[in-house]
Amino acid sequence: MDTASEVGNDSKLSVMYYGEKTEVLGKAVVHLTAVEISLDVDADRDGQVERNNPNKGSWMWGPNGHGAILLVNCDSEHTYGKRRDSDICEMSDLKDMSPMVLRTSGPAKLPEGYKLTMHISQGDAEKNLFYKSFVKDYPLVLGSEDLSKEVPYLGGNAEMNFYVEGLRFPDKDFEGLISISLSLLEPSSQGFPETPIFTDRVVFRVAPWIMTPNTLNPLEVFVCSTSDNYQFLKGMRRLVENSGYKLKVCHEYMNRGDRWMQDEIEFGYIDSPHQRFPVVLDSPRDGELQDFPYDVLLGPDFGYVTRTAYDEEVSSLDSFGNLEVSPPVIVNGKIYPLGRIIIGVAFPTATKGRNMTKVVQDFLWAQKVQEPIALFSDWLLVGHVDEFMTFVPAPDKKGFRLLLASPDAGYKLFRGLQNDGHGQAKMFDGLGAEEEITVDEILSDDKLGAENNYVQSCIDWNRDVLKRELGLDDDDIIDLPILFHVMEENRAVAYYPDMVNMIVLGKNLGIPKPFGPKVDGRCALEAEMTSLMEGLGLSCTYIDDFASYHKLLGEVHCGSNVRREPFSFKWWNLEINLEP
Amino acid sequence: MDTASEVGNDSKLSVMYYGEKTEVLGKAVVHLTAVEISLDVDADRDGQVERNNPNKGSWMWGPNGHGAILLVNCDSEHTYGKRRDSDICEMSDLKDMSPMVLRTSGPAKLPEGYKLTMHISQGDAEKNLFYKSFVKDYPLVLGSEDLSKEVPYLGGNAEMNFYVEGLRFPDKDFEGLISISLSLLEPSSQGFPETPIFTDRVVFRVAPWIMTPNTLNPLEVFVCSTSDNYQFLKGMRRLVENSGYKLKVCHEYMNRGDRWMQDEIEFGYIDSPHQRFPVVLDSPRDGELQDFPYDVLLGPDFGYVTRTAYDEEVSSLDSFGNLEVSPPVIVNGKIYPLGRIIIGVAFPTATKGRNMTKVVQDFLWAQKVQEPIALFSDWLLVGHVDEFMTFVPAPDKKGFRLLLASPDAGYKLFRGLQNDGHGQAKMFDGLGAEEEITVDEILSDDKLGAENNYVQSCIDWNRDVLKRELGLDDDDIIDLPILFHVMEENRAVAYYPDMVNMIVLGKNLGIPKPFGPKVDGRCALEAEMTSLMEGLGLSCTYIDDFASYHKLLGEVHCGSNVRREPFSFKWWNLEINLEP
Repeated sequence: MDTASEVGNDSKLSVMYYGEKTEVLGKAVVHLTAVEISLDVDADRDGQVERNNPNKGSWMWGPNGHGAILLVNCDSEHTYGKRRDSDICEMSDLKDMSPMVLRTSGPAKLPEGYKLTMHISQGDAEKNLFYKSFVKDYPLVLGSEDLSKEVPYLGGNAEMNFYVEGLRFPDKDFEGLISISLSLLEPSSQGFPETPIFTDRVVFRVAPWIMTPNTLNPLEVFVCSTSDNYQFLKGMRRLVENSGYKLKVCHEYMNRGDRWMQDEIEFGYIDSPHQRFPVVLDSPRDGELQDFPYDVLLGPDFGYVTRTAYDEEVSSLDSFGNLEVSPPVIVNGKIYPLGRIIIGVAFPTATKGRNMTKVVQDFLWAQKVQEPIALFSDWLLVGHVDEFMTFVPAPDKKGFRLLLASPDAGYKLFRGLQNDGHGQAKMFDGLGAEEEITVDEILSDDKLGAENNYVQSCIDWNRDVLKRELGLDDDDIIDLPILFHVMEENRAVAYYPDMVNMIVLGKNLGIPKPFGPKVDGRCALEAEMTSLMEGLGLSCTYIDDFASYHKLLGEVHCGSNVRREPFSFKWWNLEINLEP
Repeated sequence: MDTASEVGNDSKLSVMYYGEKTEVLGKAVVHLTAVEISLDVDADRDGQVERNNPNKGSWMWGPNGHGAILLVNCDSEHTYGKRRDSDICEMSDLKDMSPMVLRTSGPAKLPEGYKLTMHISQGDAEKNLFYKSFVKDYPLVLGSEDLSKEVPYLGGNAEMNFYVEGLRFPDKDFEGLISISLSLLEPSSQGFPETPIFTDRVVFRVAPWIMTPNTLNPLEVFVCSTSDNYQFLKGMRRLVENSGYKLKVCHEYMNRGDRWMQDEIEFGYIDSPHQRFPVVLDSPRDGELQDFPYDVLLGPDFGYVTRTAYDEEVSSLDSFGNLEVSPPVIVNGKIYPLGRIIIGVAFPTATKGRNMTKVVQDFLWAQKVQEPIALFSDWLLVGHVDEFMTFVPAPDKKGFRLLLASPDAGYKLFRGLQNDGHGQAKMFDGLGAEEEITVDEILSDDKLGAENNYVQSCIDWNRDVLKRELGLDDDDIIDLPILFHVMEENRAVAYYPDMVNMIVLGKNLGIPKPFGPKVDGRCALEAEMTSLMEGLGLSCTYIDDFASYHKLLGEVHCGSNVRREPFSFKWWNLEINLEP
């Protein structure tokens, strides 16, 4: 039968039984009813649910790939009275969900005893109460409580619209693939269960959480207002507004004195052919800012995700100043069109050390589309990668430069000043007599020299890793003159405001004002920095964060956060080879 | 420098500083010492540790792939007083371990303060205390307690031999890849830690546990001796010895009355370019046979692995009669040269049901090289896939046939007997009057008919899955005339000895004697079975298991186990695409 029946038993097959001499021994008639059933999703990723895509039951990466996409419905439909997990469906939620259509053709009713059932596998359900399907006026929730539910058969040519949502991001124990099956059940003799005679199956992949590098356009800049950071706020406001972006201030009643806007959250987004929205990753750090992402950021079309460290110690390395992402790179022919995540951990040869919690590391790795790189950041007292590296856009080469803090470049600059007769020029000029120190004094401090020697070797190790893992040449890296100071347990802090810890807003950089020695009235460190960035068409604004951030062991980057535009590249077009 | 130094500082680089008029302002000399360091493994999988393979730091599947292989050292060097986990190295253990060589060339000593260190990553070590490295006279154990250890530098042209063992099989939380790094550390100023200036890294994959299908040659056959199975044992001994194999009997003091040799264990093996040995997987079933695999099988070059269900209910579906493997197949162009694992679970549309424990399922999936298929076996009271399916070798087509129990084939045979005038022939003839039943009586039992109708629909569902997942045509499947009987909770048992539950020893099959109706003195069921198998060049031996196995709801296959030769195909030559 090649068309669906309009009424039951509308086709038949006659079977004649002949004897040896072609006499008719008997006759049998089989009555046939044809029903067309197709469970459909957007397997070709064009935003439309096509009819019976032959690839709908599997998932493949790449521009020639296929397979539907599911978003974790991690935003909230309400700004107040938020909930992110409910059995009740809101119509405004539907646009975040993936459409799924059950198309049936056939008679007005199924033959007696036949029925349709939608089901998920026990294995999937055990791991993840991972989705709810809604159809208007017909809520259908499948999960570990209900693996299987009957679906009404509407008769004639019918389309039943379902909306599917993900409940969990990919993680260590969840690859991200889920499937939904629809079966036609045939009745058996009375008292026996029905058995399926036809099953259709669709597969979804839950969209990963994606980070945005400095080379993407900013949308909003977030900072905290505290009782002592008026000067800093003023500088930031001027920079952000002059750059044409929006400054959002988290006030003291919400931040409770915690100014480290970079450390509590990381902005990212999730994307699908039918919908896209920003999602904030909330750090297990949980300082006084901890309520900000959930209470303020989460809302309609603004998602929230966090990871909780139940049996691990949370350290300073869990702050998201220690979580960055590179611009897109090509490494030995392998393309990373969404860049690579960068985190800081303990030294590989160290017998002990602080680390980023495994729950967060596992989450980052499981997203797959921005394969992480682990740097060594435990040599720093605060321990964040943003204390020694950042990326800025560039018009040439790979489209960006890696900026690295460099004590060697720092000493070279100071020795140059001394050779040119500026040995008595003062660092920290104007910040009070107890802070001031001359170039000669700095250069004659052998202990400081040894400390910076050690720091340089730590940064050099990271430089090698970054060159290898991002496919960079020396020309792609700019060394910034920054000195460090080694404190307790051989851990380092910036000696003067750490210029690499900057905020990047398109072509405008907001840089911690270094308070370097002055030559002809101009700060030699600013002059060097400005000159290095000018070559890339970047404009530097120096922001005084000395008292309110630098003295508390952070700088401009630590004290701010930027939400950026998503990549135009679609993550499902990645060609992923899972084997390392 | 392109060769290693023979003594320290044996090369130098002179730097002359010239003034404007080429007058010499100064001269500097840099003294150089070159040391060649290579951490080597058998990355090309030929059994030899080659020098500095460029691919040693990554792992790729396939005949053109690369990457070293590690065995889980899961055998025991002792038959008595077994231990499988110890810090002390036995020399006889070394052949199970993967060789790793540290090759160094250079002066007799490293320059002052430099040293070599071997290290593993914290992430790896947290998950798996996964290996120990031994060098003769120099035990070196790396794990979560010691991520890093110094290695002596021997001077001159030296090779230091290490032996690495895996401690854990791949599993849900362990992909199977582990890496070891070796770094040259450079001293910093006094009081600061050393920093690595060179790191070499090697990667291993832990060899998966591999099952052996019926098409592989047998080596040993295992059965239990009980107080009541003399008849069965006699039949089995004759079959096995006539087939030229070895029968191993587990005696009652060890089996304590538990005769289900199939259910407690599954034989498999692990393989590497340097070593291969059998490994028994011990079921979490843990009947009275539970000590047998550890106490009897585990020994020198015979490994042991088990999975324990800590927070799951162990059901009859965890017995390994419910764990089988297909011969090699090609499915839609995808090659499975090691076949596919087959397990039985609850029905996909069932709202509840028994299942194989997740710990065992996770283990099976994680081995990757025999991608599992889940059938529906929960419709059976005992719930094992070997109650309705098996594979036998065949000289044609795909090299095997799938045999399926078929109530339809059973009824066809019985109706044929009735039509031919044998309606009064008796089933269970000679087993006592209370057992006997005529063909006519069987055919007139409507309840039995309805039950078998239901059973057939359950088997049909599995038939469809097997056809799809193994790429089989109807010609690849033979239906065996077997009836079932449905008991409590709609679960089925074989009505007469279940011929599909056979033991396959090359071309000889040991089949439960069905005690079918006799025609001209010959059992009609045996005649049909023998005729079906004869076409494949297979010879049938019928073994009486009626009282001692069939009445206890098992048959020949449930009561035996076969250790087979490994595949000649090497698992690392698989081309694995991890995405489904």
